[in-house]
Amino acid sequence: MNRLSKRAIRILTSDLRKLVPMRRVPDQRPPALSPDTMVHVGEKKTESVNLHVADYGPDGLRELTTTSVEECVAFETKETPTWIQVVGLHDVNKIGTLLQSYGIHPLVQADVVNTKQMPKVDSFDDYLFVVMRLLAPDSDGHGVIVENFSLLLIDKVLITFQESPTMLFDPVFARLRNEHSRSRQNGCDYLMWALLDAVVDNYFVVLDTIEGEVERFDALVLEQTHSMDPGPIHTLKQQVFHLHRLIRPAREVAAALARGDSGLIRDATLIYLRDLYDHVIHAIEITENLRESAASLRDFYLAAVSNRMNEVMKVLTCFATIFLPLTFLAGIYGMNFQHMPELGVRWAYPALWGVFVVLTVVMLWIFRRKRWL
Amino acid sequence: MNRLSKRAIRILTSDLRKLVPMRRVPDQRPPALSPDTMVHVGEKKTESVNLHVADYGPDGLRELTTTSVEECVAFETKETPTWIQVVGLHDVNKIGTLLQSYGIHPLVQADVVNTKQMPKVDSFDDYLFVVMRLLAPDSDGHGVIVENFSLLLIDKVLITFQESPTMLFDPVFARLRNEHSRSRQNGCDYLMWALLDAVVDNYFVVLDTIEGEVERFDALVLEQTHSMDPGPIHTLKQQVFHLHRLIRPAREVAAALARGDSGLIRDATLIYLRDLYDHVIHAIEITENLRESAASLRDFYLAAVSNRMNEVMKVLTCFATIFLPLTFLAGIYGMNFQHMPELGVRWAYPALWGVFVVLTVVMLWIFRRKRWL
Amino acid sequence: MNRLSKRAIRILTSDLRKLVPMRRVPDQRPPALSPDTMVHVGEKKTESVNLHVADYGPDGLRELTTTSVEECVAFETKETPTWIQVVGLHDVNKIGTLLQSYGIHPLVQADVVNTKQMPKVDSFDDYLFVVMRLLAPDSDGHGVIVENFSLLLIDKVLITFQESPTMLFDPVFARLRNEHSRSRQNGCDYLMWALLDAVVDNYFVVLDTIEGEVERFDALVLEQTHSMDPGPIHTLKQQVFHLHRLIRPAREVAAALARGDSGLIRDATLIYLRDLYDHVIHAIEITENLRESAASLRDFYLAAVSNRMNEVMKVLTCFATIFLPLTFLAGIYGMNFQHMPELGVRWAYPALWGVFVVLTVVMLWIFRRKRWL
Amino acid sequence: MNRLSKRAIRILTSDLRKLVPMRRVPDQRPPALSPDTMVHVGEKKTESVNLHVADYGPDGLRELTTTSVEECVAFETKETPTWIQVVGLHDVNKIGTLLQSYGIHPLVQADVVNTKQMPKVDSFDDYLFVVMRLLAPDSDGHGVIVENFSLLLIDKVLITFQESPTMLFDPVFARLRNEHSRSRQNGCDYLMWALLDAVVDNYFVVLDTIEGEVERFDALVLEQTHSMDPGPIHTLKQQVFHLHRLIRPAREVAAALARGDSGLIRDATLIYLRDLYDHVIHAIEITENLRESAASLRDFYLAAVSNRMNEVMKVLTCFATIFLPLTFLAGIYGMNFQHMPELGVRWAYPALWGVFVVLTVVMLWIFRRKRWL
Amino acid sequence: MNRLSKRAIRILTSDLRKLVPMRRVPDQRPPALSPDTMVHVGEKKTESVNLHVADYGPDGLRELTTTSVEECVAFETKETPTWIQVVGLHDVNKIGTLLQSYGIHPLVQADVVNTKQMPKVDSFDDYLFVVMRLLAPDSDGHGVIVENFSLLLIDKVLITFQESPTMLFDPVFARLRNEHSRSRQNGCDYLMWALLDAVVDNYFVVLDTIEGEVERFDALVLEQTHSMDPGPIHTLKQQVFHLHRLIRPAREVAAALARGDSGLIRDATLIYLRDLYDHVIHAIEITENLRESAASLRDFYLAAVSNRMNEVMKVLTCFATIFLPLTFLAGIYGMNFQHMPELGVRWAYPALWGVFVVLTVVMLWIFRRKRWL
Repeated sequence: MNRLSKRAIRILTSDLRKLVPMRRVPDQRPPALSPDTMVHVGEKKTESVNLHVADYGPDGLRELTTTSVEECVAFETKETPTWIQVVGLHDVNKIGTLLQSYGIHPLVQADVVNTKQMPKVDSFDDYLFVVMRLLAPDSDGHGVIVENFSLLLIDKVLITFQESPTMLFDPVFARLRNEHSRSRQNGCDYLMWALLDAVVDNYFVVLDTIEGEVERFDALVLEQTHSMDPGPIHTLKQQVFHLHRLIRPAREVAAALARGDSGLIRDATLIYLRDLYDHVIHAIEITENLRESAASLRDFYLAAVSNRMNEVMKVLTCFATIFLPLTFLAGIYGMNFQHMPELGVRWAYPALWGVFVVLTVVMLWIFRRKRWL
Repeated sequence: MNRLSKRAIRILTSDLRKLVPMRRVPDQRPPALSPDTMVHVGEKKTESVNLHVADYGPDGLRELTTTSVEECVAFETKETPTWIQVVGLHDVNKIGTLLQSYGIHPLVQADVVNTKQMPKVDSFDDYLFVVMRLLAPDSDGHGVIVENFSLLLIDKVLITFQESPTMLFDPVFARLRNEHSRSRQNGCDYLMWALLDAVVDNYFVVLDTIEGEVERFDALVLEQTHSMDPGPIHTLKQQVFHLHRLIRPAREVAAALARGDSGLIRDATLIYLRDLYDHVIHAIEITENLRESAASLRDFYLAAVSNRMNEVMKVLTCFATIFLPLTFLAGIYGMNFQHMPELGVRWAYPALWGVFVVLTVVMLWIFRRKRWL
Repeated sequence: MNRLSKRAIRILTSDLRKLVPMRRVPDQRPPALSPDTMVHVGEKKTESVNLHVADYGPDGLRELTTTSVEECVAFETKETPTWIQVVGLHDVNKIGTLLQSYGIHPLVQADVVNTKQMPKVDSFDDYLFVVMRLLAPDSDGHGVIVENFSLLLIDKVLITFQESPTMLFDPVFARLRNEHSRSRQNGCDYLMWALLDAVVDNYFVVLDTIEGEVERFDALVLEQTHSMDPGPIHTLKQQVFHLHRLIRPAREVAAALARGDSGLIRDATLIYLRDLYDHVIHAIEITENLRESAASLRDFYLAAVSNRMNEVMKVLTCFATIFLPLTFLAGIYGMNFQHMPELGVRWAYPALWGVFVVLTVVMLWIFRRKRWL
Repeated sequence: MNRLSKRAIRILTSDLRKLVPMRRVPDQRPPALSPDTMVHVGEKKTESVNLHVADYGPDGLRELTTTSVEECVAFETKETPTWIQVVGLHDVNKIGTLLQSYGIHPLVQADVVNTKQMPKVDSFDDYLFVVMRLLAPDSDGHGVIVENFSLLLIDKVLITFQESPTMLFDPVFARLRNEHSRSRQNGCDYLMWALLDAVVDNYFVVLDTIEGEVERFDALVLEQTHSMDPGPIHTLKQQVFHLHRLIRPAREVAAALARGDSGLIRDATLIYLRDLYDHVIHAIEITENLRESAASLRDFYLAAVSNRMNEVMKVLTCFATIFLPLTFLAGIYGMNFQHMPELGVRWAYPALWGVFVVLTVVMLWIFRRKRWL
Repeated sequence: MNRLSKRAIRILTSDLRKLVPMRRVPDQRPPALSPDTMVHVGEKKTESVNLHVADYGPDGLRELTTTSVEECVAFETKETPTWIQVVGLHDVNKIGTLLQSYGIHPLVQADVVNTKQMPKVDSFDDYLFVVMRLLAPDSDGHGVIVENFSLLLIDKVLITFQESPTMLFDPVFARLRNEHSRSRQNGCDYLMWALLDAVVDNYFVVLDTIEGEVERFDALVLEQTHSMDPGPIHTLKQQVFHLHRLIRPAREVAAALARGDSGLIRDATLIYLRDLYDHVIHAIEITENLRESAASLRDFYLAAVSNRMNEVMKVLTCFATIFLPLTFLAGIYGMNFQHMPELGVRWAYPALWGVFVVLTVVMLWIFRRKRWL
């Protein structure tokens, strides 16, 4: 049974390690380049960058999936809201061409292809640039994918950028295809909210999983503290802290959007963004609780080990303290002196046994009184 | 006696676990739905949703208990203040109908039926939406019920929402039925305060119970640290931290109400809301003290275990250090060498006893001086 | 000597427990009552509530001690400043009558008789309500009395409320009786400051006592860490934290008064109130230092116990490590094999002693090099 | 060598104790007196209070050292800037006369002679009152003098107050005597800055010394953790925390001056005061680093002791675990049973030795694999 | 293998010590001098101070490297932007002459040559003074150079100051030499940004190295906690804390620049400075994570040692507890009493072996059940 739970811990730990990837990708940006030169920072991929365009309005929805920027720009009409979903950030030229056709500042262009960019909101006269972190369970459900998700709100166009394809936004697409949905009736700012809300909703899915792990761990530690290795607790704590740091910057982003400083967001959408802010606060609240729980777990582990050591110590002390004088006495009468009067006494041996028993009883009584046994 | 107190701790711990339910209810909201679609999040119940309507004024009080929204809306008169108490949130259609008849925003409707919504105040032009956490001792007095309590203040109507029936608001009802009470003379904003005050007052009832538990625990730990298991201390700390997190958001809510930004709250009511804020601050102050006490308890426990181990260690060391050389000497003269001149000496055996006694006395004196005994 | 200091610690601890009373008085307010109904919260007393009225001005001072509210109100003249000192809060009717005659809001009336009210300043159009905590050494000088002290500044009248008689304000009275004192020349706002200053000055008296205790403790711990029980350190820490929480809210009160928002405080008095604020900040600074010292004391205690354990451990290890092989060797030659050639060798016994000595010296040298001895 | 470093620590500790005096001077202010009565709080001295007056301007410098206030006031001319340096605060009458001649508020007068006054800036219409803490190495270079330094800036007069003579301001005097120096060209506000800058510069001298001590300590702990007493580390931490608390309030003072709210400070001087603020921030930064280092040192000490204990434990365990079975076997063949067939076997004794060797080798191999040795 | 990793740790530690130099350079400023006198604080060097001047514009670039201030000032034209790079700060006169020719305030002149100046932004009417910390890997790639980098933006001139030559700004020079680069098209404010951006970019290079070390360490500790010395962990923590303190002040500097209060920074440059602020925030975020990781590492180390000790303790206890009674029994029958009936019994010896085996099995079973083995 003990062996079983040891294995359980090992599995748990390996799961944890997969859960939130903590490996840093070294910053591959060549320092000699001007900082507003577009350089893709992140894993290089060979697949082509995909563009999914959806031109929609109360009257209809036109969709196009392409890999050509020209096709995409030609497809879009200026009158109705359009969502351009860019999947893949490694083709710097293509993305540069797309962004230049909308007159985006070079620094923003560089930020779009930098997959290590911190979450932020940059408000310009003509457009709004938002970077958020996207957390989603990976395909086999044991790990978590952490990517950047950035978007540009340009009046009637919303361009979103993501590194790899994800099913996260499928429900948003579904609602867009439904002609009675609010998404169809509203502009790009509402769509932006719907997408960010989908992102934040997935924080909860991830947090729920981690919360379950922490609880499973808590139960494990409470149940069998003796033979436990502190490694998994350390890993858990690091994971939870890492998660907290991943989610925390979302607060600033949501707060900036909810303040509604940008003219591109209509007043009717502000209430939705304030709701988004509430959700982000809730997510951060959960991570803070997780941090506290993980820290508390470690403290408890230390206390449990200390307590265990204390108990073991007491047993050792009692045994040693009882047997040391007895063995000494036995040693005495094992000596080979020629003149040891006790050795010849008939009742000496049984008497010594009596002494042994009395000594033991007295010591046990003392230990009992001191509550060592 | 020791056994008794061990049992006491076990009972205490099981009580603690019941006190504040820490199990997360998984968020059952289907992620594919639009976030402003009303979905009941929480335990599904089969009982019907109850509406209790009280239309009151200085001149009279008319009451109605119904399960039909139509009856409820028909019963209410626009001229006098009305309190609609909704008990049960699982019938989304019914609540939706009620809220739509007052023109409430879909997002607020969704928040009303989401029992995991964080406490907040949302101020709109025509209405004020308040979510608070309701903590109350449960029926058998050992645990705590934690629910959301939300209310909508719409000029002359106050709609309150709660998940399960509670006796918490009975005193408010009683005062409403008393025709000379201030509640009857004042509008819905005063009633809102009276209800929120009842909610906050019950925080103190719960906190009082927990404070008593912490004190009982503190006494227990001070009294018998030797054989104590760190588990209950860990659980206590987790509970108190959880409680703190439950109550903390009330501060923002009370502060927002006391600022009186909403036009729906009359100036005469503001002093009452400021008083509410004072009470909330007091409650949070208490939870912070509890947090500190619980953390301190753990530290003390660790110190006590360390100290205990130190004492046990010293006894072990003294015993071993005294008996090891004595036993060695006894071993020497137990050897069977043919040529051991001491063995033939007449006074050798009593002389050795002398050596034993002297050695023991000297070592005891050393330990005494080093304050090990 | 050891026994003596153990007793010293015991006395110290019992003193500490008395110093700041940490027992909560359960909130006796019946939850069914409206929150603005006056209910006395606190110890019920049987003595009558005393009113001491002092009507003063540059030209004279008229005093009256009575138990009748009517007499008190009749005695007071509207032209000159008057101080009404109410001692005892348990007679709700009497205090209610007094306050109603000055048109005080019901909520403030309820706060006056609530002895568990947190310190605060409430500014109204016609009056200013201040609640402060009063800390004073008790009659036998070993404990501390903690009470609320509240006051109402109503233009030309200052009403102060305290639970039990205290000599704290005697110097203020003395100055009022001196016809050349500033108190006589100034109005009620100056008197309010004089009273609050007397309250804060007594914080320092209490803090001075506690500071002395902490220092005495620090010296005790530094001197004899071996046989010390962590209980008193835990108690000391709890006491100091409790004290900090008692004094901390005074900061907000003093700050609010020093800002001088109320029209009832003349500009000439503001400089005095700013001085009061300085004093409060100083008092809080001292409690924060005490907190740090108490926390540091605990850390040091743990370090000292660890260090002690380490030393004891090393002695045990050295002794065991030296005697175990020696005893083993002695055991070898105590065996009764018929064919043990060494036993017959003449110089075997002294040679073995040589081995014993060499072994011991070598091991001592090793321990010396490893700095275990 | 070990003994030597023990002595080094002892010296270090005694130095540390002297470094920053932590003894509280009990507040000797009689509580019955009005708080704005001037009472000297601090050590009573018998020497006379000295006044050094310097009336200066671009054209010349006139100096006077006197003990008479009348002489001092008569000497000063209203047209040119004058610095009155008051050394010694115990003669309340003399200082009161001086301050009254400049129309200083009684509360400020009381603050001047209170040597326990916290650092602060009080801005009045006609004058500015500044209190700072003065830290300077004492005459024998091992300890630190901590005093209050307060000053009054009254348009064309600067009065400074200090408890005891110090050479701290000699460089400022020297620059004042140099007719081409900026001090001579500028007014009292510039002089005020020069003096405060001299005060803050001496913080760095003290901090430099303490920083050296901390580094020396760090090296000592890293080198020889085994036999170290945690006392000095505790003392060091307390000292550093105390120092931090002494210097911290200077931030508020410097910030208030740098904001330049007072009309008595010319705009040209503001840049100097902002520089002063930078220096104070730097000093506080250093104390914060020292706090962290001291706290880290304690943590490291605990870790080192733990590690040490672990190593000692392993050695003890290995020895005991090897010799316990061997000794048991030797004990077996030391028994006196008449029928023990092994005893008669010729090769039994060497065979047993073989068993001893094999057992030992196997156990050593196991410990090696478990990395205990 | 164990020995190998011990060596690995030793190398790691020595690397760490070199990484961030923590030795304080004592402040060599003579305290008797006026604080606005220029005094070089830092290492004295003998090489001449170098000035590199680059006068550039869209039309061309003129460069000059000289050691003469006069040449430099003569070379610069007022119409086009000019960058004067000053390398070496020890020649106070030369730098003073240069700064006076631009009318820089004496205090700023003093700050320029003070290499211990804290990072800050000082905004004047005609110029902007910025101090930043420059972190760069040193020539052999194992350590880090920490210097101050200050700059003065004076409308059409940018003067930068650095202590020693560095290749950090080579890419900026390269872009300046490229006639189509943005640097050439823009003014000095853009160049200032480019330089500060190069500085901040190098923070990441250093942080990346340290992050790698921390991860390497984390892996090492997880792998082999038994024989590890806490020294390197302590050093690592100190290093990381030191690094955090070095980088932290950059936040205030970047924030002040991004606010764009100075009229010398054009609006078009503000977006670049806001990007700089983002980068600084990111760098600080990383150092905070490193702090947390280092602190967590120490906690984990302590937990691992505790756990280890617990395990060792249990083995010791089991062994001692099994062998103590057995050895005692063997001792009994080694006694030389004449009347010990058991000794003559034929099956006594094998029976005793039976007792030995049964005792051992029972005790092993007990330990197994208690999960000590």
